[in-house]
Amino acid sequence: MAYGLLNGKRGIISGALNEQSIAWKIALKAKEEGATFTLTNAPIAMRMGAIRELAEQTNAEIIPADATSSDDLDNLFTKSQEVLGGKVDFVLHSIGMSPNIRKGRAYTDLNYDWLKQTLDISAVSFHKMLQSAYKLDAISEWGSVVALTYMAAQRTFPFYTDMADAKALLESIARSFGYRYGQHRKVRINTVSQSPTPTTAGSGIGGFDRFFEFAEKTAPLGNATADQCADYCITLFSDMTRMVTMQNLFHDGGFSMTGISEEVMDLINKQP
Amino acid sequence: MAYGLLNGKRGIISGALNEQSIAWKIALKAKEEGATFTLTNAPIAMRMGAIRELAEQTNAEIIPADATSSDDLDNLFTKSQEVLGGKVDFVLHSIGMSPNIRKGRAYTDLNYDWLKQTLDISAVSFHKMLQSAYKLDAISEWGSVVALTYMAAQRTFPFYTDMADAKALLESIARSFGYRYGQHRKVRINTVSQSPTPTTAGSGIGGFDRFFEFAEKTAPLGNATADQCADYCITLFSDMTRMVTMQNLFHDGGFSMTGISEEVMDLINKQP
Amino acid sequence: MAYGLLNGKRGIISGALNEQSIAWKIALKAKEEGATFTLTNAPIAMRMGAIRELAEQTNAEIIPADATSSDDLDNLFTKSQEVLGGKVDFVLHSIGMSPNIRKGRAYTDLNYDWLKQTLDISAVSFHKMLQSAYKLDAISEWGSVVALTYMAAQRTFPFYTDMADAKALLESIARSFGYRYGQHRKVRINTVSQSPTPTTAGSGIGGFDRFFEFAEKTAPLGNATADQCADYCITLFSDMTRMVTMQNLFHDGGFSMTGISEEVMDLINKQP
Amino acid sequence: MAYGLLNGKRGIISGALNEQSIAWKIALKAKEEGATFTLTNAPIAMRMGAIRELAEQTNAEIIPADATSSDDLDNLFTKSQEVLGGKVDFVLHSIGMSPNIRKGRAYTDLNYDWLKQTLDISAVSFHKMLQSAYKLDAISEWGSVVALTYMAAQRTFPFYTDMADAKALLESIARSFGYRYGQHRKVRINTVSQSPTPTTAGSGIGGFDRFFEFAEKTAPLGNATADQCADYCITLFSDMTRMVTMQNLFHDGGFSMTGISEEVMDLINKQP
Repeated sequence: MAYGLLNGKRGIISGALNEQSIAWKIALKAKEEGATFTLTNAPIAMRMGAIRELAEQTNAEIIPADATSSDDLDNLFTKSQEVLGGKVDFVLHSIGMSPNIRKGRAYTDLNYDWLKQTLDISAVSFHKMLQSAYKLDAISEWGSVVALTYMAAQRTFPFYTDMADAKALLESIARSFGYRYGQHRKVRINTVSQSPTPTTAGSGIGGFDRFFEFAEKTAPLGNATADQCADYCITLFSDMTRMVTMQNLFHDGGFSMTGISEEVMDLINKQP
Repeated sequence: MAYGLLNGKRGIISGALNEQSIAWKIALKAKEEGATFTLTNAPIAMRMGAIRELAEQTNAEIIPADATSSDDLDNLFTKSQEVLGGKVDFVLHSIGMSPNIRKGRAYTDLNYDWLKQTLDISAVSFHKMLQSAYKLDAISEWGSVVALTYMAAQRTFPFYTDMADAKALLESIARSFGYRYGQHRKVRINTVSQSPTPTTAGSGIGGFDRFFEFAEKTAPLGNATADQCADYCITLFSDMTRMVTMQNLFHDGGFSMTGISEEVMDLINKQP
Repeated sequence: MAYGLLNGKRGIISGALNEQSIAWKIALKAKEEGATFTLTNAPIAMRMGAIRELAEQTNAEIIPADATSSDDLDNLFTKSQEVLGGKVDFVLHSIGMSPNIRKGRAYTDLNYDWLKQTLDISAVSFHKMLQSAYKLDAISEWGSVVALTYMAAQRTFPFYTDMADAKALLESIARSFGYRYGQHRKVRINTVSQSPTPTTAGSGIGGFDRFFEFAEKTAPLGNATADQCADYCITLFSDMTRMVTMQNLFHDGGFSMTGISEEVMDLINKQP
Repeated sequence: MAYGLLNGKRGIISGALNEQSIAWKIALKAKEEGATFTLTNAPIAMRMGAIRELAEQTNAEIIPADATSSDDLDNLFTKSQEVLGGKVDFVLHSIGMSPNIRKGRAYTDLNYDWLKQTLDISAVSFHKMLQSAYKLDAISEWGSVVALTYMAAQRTFPFYTDMADAKALLESIARSFGYRYGQHRKVRINTVSQSPTPTTAGSGIGGFDRFFEFAEKTAPLGNATADQCADYCITLFSDMTRMVTMQNLFHDGGFSMTGISEEVMDLINKQP
């Protein structure tokens, strides 16, 4: 069902790699809800991705951008405004990558060049995106920016290694920039802390499947899906949530507030 | 602008005393968004209140209920289902009162009979409401319950005295019951922690005006209004936020995440 | 090893029921560290308890007090000052009881008279204790008050039912009163959120053993023992921690900050 | 007064620049409490600093180390063990620097090379320190590591710009590494979130004086001094706090838990 929550709104959506991506679902939903937007991804991710298919479905232009390059991001905002015919009303940051995870380095044996990449790609890119927008005055008053994050920023999940630290940095940037952009242009900035989601990025993490099960058994509503996350992000992009800013919002079926569930207790009980 | 976010939904809205009430705004907005609902308030509050006017505007039936009486609450849910023609999809708890505040008792000189009343009316009433609904199976699957709260539950605001403790209890009940009701019927339960709002209840607190100014100067977006709070609650009642539960959600223009603002720093600077 | 951290200090220790009690361990340790103190417990708990033995070991006088009675608490502070020869430097609140847990009532089927008792005994008693002390000016400058709590105040642990809400209320009272007593007499007030501990109170909770195991496997340092909790409380009573106030301090081997441990993941993996 | 809390313990203390430094006070106090330790600082900071004077007073050897260099940190741990005659029992990380703050760049106009330096020096250095220690197995069982941080990691303080994000990263590293080192060798890792302190680093921040006043008026106990912070860190290095790990501990006179104080409300009231 569509409500027209984003009627007339213009946006930029990053991070749609394939049908499993949360960003992909957000793009489809944003279209349904009346938005027009551009899609962006790293040039390298685009070669692998099916983003052109999504662009056709949503009538969106693709503007490649390396999220670690301020020049590319300047171009992204400039072109997006041209293509969309005005300032941008919403932005999605869904960008993260850890070479240390990909290459199986333990957290106590990090490669620091790779850690730098993790932080640059997954967190500093958010600051760069916001700084580009701010300088170009590319986001309209009461615009809304959302970055996807994960609860490893608050508590340790061993398989998440240096990405946990990147997400903590990302969430801090949301608060820090949210304060400034809020004062300056009433732009609000939040992070959505989503359940483990079987995307390409998520599934690449060792132990993901087992943890997915644990989270499913812990959260009273079960894990939130990518589709449900898309719905939630739409509300945050809409005019109905204008005074929510600088928040980290858990979208996780209650996992974050559950110490242990009865299902998990039963499971432990059955141990030999 | 209306989106039809609550089309076909049935609800119960408590706490609409007069036009300033957040609950009043929520009722108007819920009506606009397509809901039908009953209104409830304590018999004593109703005598003072203009609730009949609201009932006419929103085509809603009034079912008086003392929120500290499980019998009254059972009746509220039973009657509401009859009147609305089915299980309830959303419930608003907007109930709070502190005799200690009303009568100017300091926090270090509380009257304990009055503290008991503060806790009963402002927090335990939420458990009673939920327990009545649970036992009567009165809330539909994926139903949504919201209680209004205030950040004094996390940090001390001197003028809020024992209401701070009541709100901490209320927020805990939201988590505790949210876990059970989530598992049982996928019902989600959240609290919304709203900016100081010049309602009858708010303004009755000594020092409210000065604090309102401080919060206005601190929050990068300023204080959230009752109307904006209504918008936000509508999204939480809608199907777009199904996996958000057991959360305390700040709707405060960024106040909660701002340590100090430049405006407040300037103000201090001007001191002799 | 003893350091003399409490040399010359006078205290009041509540809640020592038997050798398993955390309060019992704190009494022994406080004695070792040079303190003199009175012991208190509810008259009914004292009949069951071995508190006289502890009183002999620590050369402490017992002053019975029903913690829900302000008169008893006034007497406790007045007598303690007489016995100890001056104002009190530290106070331990270790009092909690839920008839709903004892009698196996589910959280969705609470008996509200019993809930009132849970809140009165486990949380409001802390306010009464502090208010008695405040009015009698019974705590010396830079005195330190600690109440024992549990993480169920932040996240839901199903077996903890209404005690979770009581602990949330307790922690709020610590903040609220901590602000006032800090301003008034530099008295600091904190709560210590301890690992599950196999005391009489803890073990009485259904599912305790299984949860104890889960917590042991989750916390990187394992569960904190009652002895270790005593050590920690001594530091909070000492002059070395004077500027810590209004805090909830986790003493739990890292449990609170661990989302999932590898041990728990392995355990899930072995499920059929 | 000294208690011998660190009798026989060996440590490494970084960041003592001059008498105002918190690390300086910690070194003096650690000496008093019976510890032996090495001092370390960046070669460049040492030229400016009076660290030799401190080394003499505390009978400590100085081992220069650039905290962004794993080689230097390996050397620090290796040499320290040689000098001290065994594994290290405690480590203080008190290292932070932001070229963006020094050079007055606004948060919305960051120089990204400088941001990289801020993060490297102030946060990643902590990971490097811990990874060096972990690989060399240089910290004894139940050893204790503390890093100094600031509440800007949780809420925005405008003058703190990119250092806020660095501190969020630092605190995340404490949790992430705390989990691993806890499991591996029972080593605990915490951060202490200290009141604004008029050190060389603190005072270098624009608006520091005004904010110091605001914090002093807000915290019910006033701002914590460097000396008091030293006392607190000693308790965390001692054996009395063995089960505290992965925590961020506020040492701030209650500032963090105070929404607004009466003093600040009065101050606002006096505005024209």
